[in-house]
Amino acid sequence: MSLSSWNDRPSKSAILGFVARVSDEGAADFVPVADRIAVLDNDGTLWCERPAYVQALFILERLAKQAAADPELAARPVTRALLAGDLAAAQAAGAGEMMELLLSAHAGITAEEFAEVAERWLAEARHPRFGRLHSELTYAPMLELVDLLRDAGFRVFVVTGGGVEFVRAVSERIYGIPPENVVGSAVEVSFARRDGRIVLVREAKVLGSPNEGPPKPVNIQAHIGKRPILAAGNSAGDREMLEYVTTGRLPSLAIVIDHDDAEREYAYAGNAVTDPDAEPIGDTAARLGWTVVSMRDDWARVFADEG
Amino acid sequence: MSLSSWNDRPSKSAILGFVARVSDEGAADFVPVADRIAVLDNDGTLWCERPAYVQALFILERLAKQAAADPELAARPVTRALLAGDLAAAQAAGAGEMMELLLSAHAGITAEEFAEVAERWLAEARHPRFGRLHSELTYAPMLELVDLLRDAGFRVFVVTGGGVEFVRAVSERIYGIPPENVVGSAVEVSFARRDGRIVLVREAKVLGSPNEGPPKPVNIQAHIGKRPILAAGNSAGDREMLEYVTTGRLPSLAIVIDHDDAEREYAYAGNAVTDPDAEPIGDTAARLGWTVVSMRDDWARVFADEG
Repeated sequence: MSLSSWNDRPSKSAILGFVARVSDEGAADFVPVADRIAVLDNDGTLWCERPAYVQALFILERLAKQAAADPELAARPVTRALLAGDLAAAQAAGAGEMMELLLSAHAGITAEEFAEVAERWLAEARHPRFGRLHSELTYAPMLELVDLLRDAGFRVFVVTGGGVEFVRAVSERIYGIPPENVVGSAVEVSFARRDGRIVLVREAKVLGSPNEGPPKPVNIQAHIGKRPILAAGNSAGDREMLEYVTTGRLPSLAIVIDHDDAEREYAYAGNAVTDPDAEPIGDTAARLGWTVVSMRDDWARVFADEG
Repeated sequence: MSLSSWNDRPSKSAILGFVARVSDEGAADFVPVADRIAVLDNDGTLWCERPAYVQALFILERLAKQAAADPELAARPVTRALLAGDLAAAQAAGAGEMMELLLSAHAGITAEEFAEVAERWLAEARHPRFGRLHSELTYAPMLELVDLLRDAGFRVFVVTGGGVEFVRAVSERIYGIPPENVVGSAVEVSFARRDGRIVLVREAKVLGSPNEGPPKPVNIQAHIGKRPILAAGNSAGDREMLEYVTTGRLPSLAIVIDHDDAEREYAYAGNAVTDPDAEPIGDTAARLGWTVVSMRDDWARVFADEG
């Protein structure tokens, strides 16, 4: 039953072979269970990230509501460009101001209030092309991989460039991954007392660096404290995480999802967000011999709730 | 068998009653398993912190070796005061310089090298009064509490003011708590490539704020992403963590360990490190009705490997 949505091709064999070897006490590649840690990117690796990041849609919807109630905000060129979906114009009008607007959309509320807002939105928001909930557009083959890893004693973490609290709002429900196993970009929260309760209030300020590129290994160390032995990603922003995993002392597997299926999903190169000139991850993978998964050829089905 | 090292007194009943109520689907205080999260302070809550923090001894031993090889370092007044065990004199000679010396003791090495150094040291270093390994001076009643919680479906985290990587070096071995379930103070690590490998190098700089006082709830949110329902601590530095847990929407239990047993361990008030003028935690606990555990009266035995 494991990996039943995968076609019988080399990438499926590579995954099954690796998991079997590290779990087999008699094998040369055996890895003690304490070291069986897997880290998986989220956007484009576990769920659909096109035509826009799910979280970007979430933030823009909030910004639209704020602008509707605030004519001064609505009139600003950055707001108008963002709400028209013109990222280039928004950046041209002021990259710093754009970032501040996006971060302010959910500032001032508590972490617990944010979780509720995100959960409610994710329970209703639909994908513009597929018409289904974003939370239904997880990749069936990757959910099977998560199950396979867990059955083999792995602890499985999501390591996302997206906002950690946004992903935590659905990770347990859609991946079976609890909030503490999500590592991501974060905003600062401040300690406060409100009505006799201690609460943590979201600030309009990024905590440290966005979790893409070299910060991914740094944050994996900060959060998990051990080098993982399996990683999966789909963009140049995952490169350092994949290299980190493959340059440890233990057997390892690096998996790259190639979005080459315009018919069932999307076809696009694996570029990074923060460094668009970085080598596309497919080229890095070919050079370093990583396991490349073709969505078109390797996956018998793409989304989780298809028949 | 559970809590067998606890005497039959109110604090034992309070703990057993709470765990039973939140785990009983028919009870008014039932808490779904996804929300059963416990956070435990380390020094003075899970293991002995007197006459000095274990990690302080670890750092000073390294500093002594560095001073032996570096006459200029050895001659500095701060070094001499630190190695003489005179913290007040070291602070008087220069609080900033003292901090820098302590942070520099393990800077420049990788996170993986640090883990090895700490593990090796902890496998040999002995307590000055008891003559036993520090890692043997864990509290038997608290290890039983960890087991009880885990059996009841809790995820158990150590939330320490100490260095997260130092505690991670032993947490799995002595508490059965994996490194990713340890939250603590941290130094910055930097991304580097050495001999073709990606490594993370320790810097002589604290990451954010030390994990004591209000930063404890902030770091719990950053790391775990949910408000816990049970917390245990023993100093004013744990106060905000305990208050955070007790001011949520779910049933909760706050436990304070009172070190009142000079004969078997030590007797001292629960003051904070970073704010010595803060209300001792025993007074806060009495005022807020938290569960106070008397080491002398509530614990039939103190350390884990006693008969």
